[in-house]
Amino acid sequence: MAEDQNEILRSKHHGLLSIKPEMTVMSAEELKTAYTPGVAEIANEIAADESQKNRYTISGKLVAVVTDGSAVLGLGNIGPAAGLPIVEAKALLYRSFAQVDAIPLALKQVAVADFVKTLVNIQESFAGIHLEDIAAPKCFEIESALKRQLQIPVYHDDQEGSAIVVLAGLINAAKVVEKKLTDLKIVQVGIGAAGVATTNLLLSIGIKQITLIDRYGVITENDSRYNSYQRRLASQVNSTPGSTLNEVIQGADVFIGLSDRQVLTQNQVQLMNPAAIVFALANPIPEIAPAQAAAGGAAIIATGSSKYPNQVNNILVFPGLFQGLLASGLKTVSLKLEAQIAQALARMVSHPKATKIVPSVFDPGVVTTVANTVEEYAQARN
Amino acid sequence: MAEDQNEILRSKHHGLLSIKPEMTVMSAEELKTAYTPGVAEIANEIAADESQKNRYTISGKLVAVVTDGSAVLGLGNIGPAAGLPIVEAKALLYRSFAQVDAIPLALKQVAVADFVKTLVNIQESFAGIHLEDIAAPKCFEIESALKRQLQIPVYHDDQEGSAIVVLAGLINAAKVVEKKLTDLKIVQVGIGAAGVATTNLLLSIGIKQITLIDRYGVITENDSRYNSYQRRLASQVNSTPGSTLNEVIQGADVFIGLSDRQVLTQNQVQLMNPAAIVFALANPIPEIAPAQAAAGGAAIIATGSSKYPNQVNNILVFPGLFQGLLASGLKTVSLKLEAQIAQALARMVSHPKATKIVPSVFDPGVVTTVANTVEEYAQARN
Repeated sequence: MAEDQNEILRSKHHGLLSIKPEMTVMSAEELKTAYTPGVAEIANEIAADESQKNRYTISGKLVAVVTDGSAVLGLGNIGPAAGLPIVEAKALLYRSFAQVDAIPLALKQVAVADFVKTLVNIQESFAGIHLEDIAAPKCFEIESALKRQLQIPVYHDDQEGSAIVVLAGLINAAKVVEKKLTDLKIVQVGIGAAGVATTNLLLSIGIKQITLIDRYGVITENDSRYNSYQRRLASQVNSTPGSTLNEVIQGADVFIGLSDRQVLTQNQVQLMNPAAIVFALANPIPEIAPAQAAAGGAAIIATGSSKYPNQVNNILVFPGLFQGLLASGLKTVSLKLEAQIAQALARMVSHPKATKIVPSVFDPGVVTTVANTVEEYAQARN
Repeated sequence: MAEDQNEILRSKHHGLLSIKPEMTVMSAEELKTAYTPGVAEIANEIAADESQKNRYTISGKLVAVVTDGSAVLGLGNIGPAAGLPIVEAKALLYRSFAQVDAIPLALKQVAVADFVKTLVNIQESFAGIHLEDIAAPKCFEIESALKRQLQIPVYHDDQEGSAIVVLAGLINAAKVVEKKLTDLKIVQVGIGAAGVATTNLLLSIGIKQITLIDRYGVITENDSRYNSYQRRLASQVNSTPGSTLNEVIQGADVFIGLSDRQVLTQNQVQLMNPAAIVFALANPIPEIAPAQAAAGGAAIIATGSSKYPNQVNNILVFPGLFQGLLASGLKTVSLKLEAQIAQALARMVSHPKATKIVPSVFDPGVVTTVANTVEEYAQARN
């Protein structure tokens, strides 16, 4: 049913978006204002002061939601064309949730330098870049090069967005089970884009006891099968001794799944500490089915799906975040800002309980809360 | 007054365009349709058949209006940022006149190969490329490389658009003065983007007696001060002997000005053949003021400005042309198609007279006439 509806909607509309004129051009007078000679006045003003571009053209408010389709949640490397509907949907959500104008941009799968140069060459057209579904470790190199070379904010939703909403959930989960956040003993499976960003954020707020696991087992500093981003994190965390999930899950307070497969069993949940917190965020199939996690004794269960309570969903973050970036002129999303947004989102749930640790995406105030946090952070820095 | 209005309109709106959602996302059900899991169905369909991208995303209808701001009409090389308002206005006109969705894209002034690679890298995002205000001879190399490397139509308004509308006007001007089109003896001043494309089109329909003049005088095949595009044209036309405008204007039937300055005098118009046709298309100041041309005895005068009769304006062409390209799937704008569009536009003026040789941009049917011509041409080729 929903699929049919989808089919109909999109075949009709050529996608989810169109371009809306903000003025009519119905007369010679309007044509003069919109086009020549009116436009020459604007062009001259911008030629004299380039910053006026943001005031006088759509480029001052337009976010490009960019993907190369190399790591689409639940679908893998499906390429830029197939990656387009996801970034178009994100653009729709920007507009629908936060009145942010955004367009989807599919970028060919090219070398990092070429990817970066392409966006550098067209940066004058946009007010910000939202990166989406780009495989790790390429995404780290791309984001870091773009942050150096672009004059506009760059945000990778799979990294910063995921990290923020995981931390928001964890803050409230810790409250519910009455454990101190920074004392939590965490096992994190999956150390791609979302995984690296999440560990970085957790470390930045003082959580140290994190064991990182990926396809070859517990990540160690010197294992050349892992990339430099993963190995550097391995050197910063205090891992539980052991090399398999079965070993390190024993006595853990929290399981964070940011992988792409079912990896956690009911028996393993039973090995965790009492009042265990299980974030099984793989999509579309969580690392463990919520019912099994509950049967294993988990006190709090979160997933990436709207089918269960506690949906850990990036929509809580990105619309308000970019609204705040554009309003404040802030260019960089720092770890400190990420933590503040997570705290603000957590505070929105006035009485956290096992089945309510994060706001719903439709809770009124989510976008404003996130945007205000960004603006306050930007003001405090000035 | 118009300037104030401009100022107010644009400071308010951040430009002339915004992004319009084609569906609402107000409920969990709508979110599932617009975003996950609905979007995964679309992504999978495109992964299986890439052509479905055009059906299911905005990329199937979105035209990028691209400039590097290196040759803006009347303003010169003002750079990509200052070039943005012009391409944004064109995008507005696409939407307002022809319901074509288009966005402005400013591209850094880079080497041809880099320019081309940038658009190749993002071509999946668009249904067509409209090039604008790019200096010659770079624009010729860029357009030709893009036509080879892109799977979507590429159109340079300053070239093809200008050529088509000049020819449309010339067809009717010849009728009014009762001279045979292919017998016309033409002096053309200005052989940049518009000039080269216009001469090419005139040659393609059998007009041979064309004398080309640019800053160093009459262009000859072996003058290394001219670029290869200009010299090749010089070898194809039958020039009037002479090296200055004063020499070659004697006995000319038509003056076509596609330059950027006042170059034609009343005395020179007097040297032309009786029933002289003067197209003084430089913007914002024509090659000769219409009153002076009339005083010199010109029978028909056209300019690029809406202040005088016979405005030779690319708006007559590009909205309908791209509407037709998108509807027909045609990729290439050939000289033959350009000529057919010019003829169709000329036929729209049922009784051409000295003050009415081209339709007005607001005449009903202009867009449909051009779009239908493109579609018929495309069908005839299949």
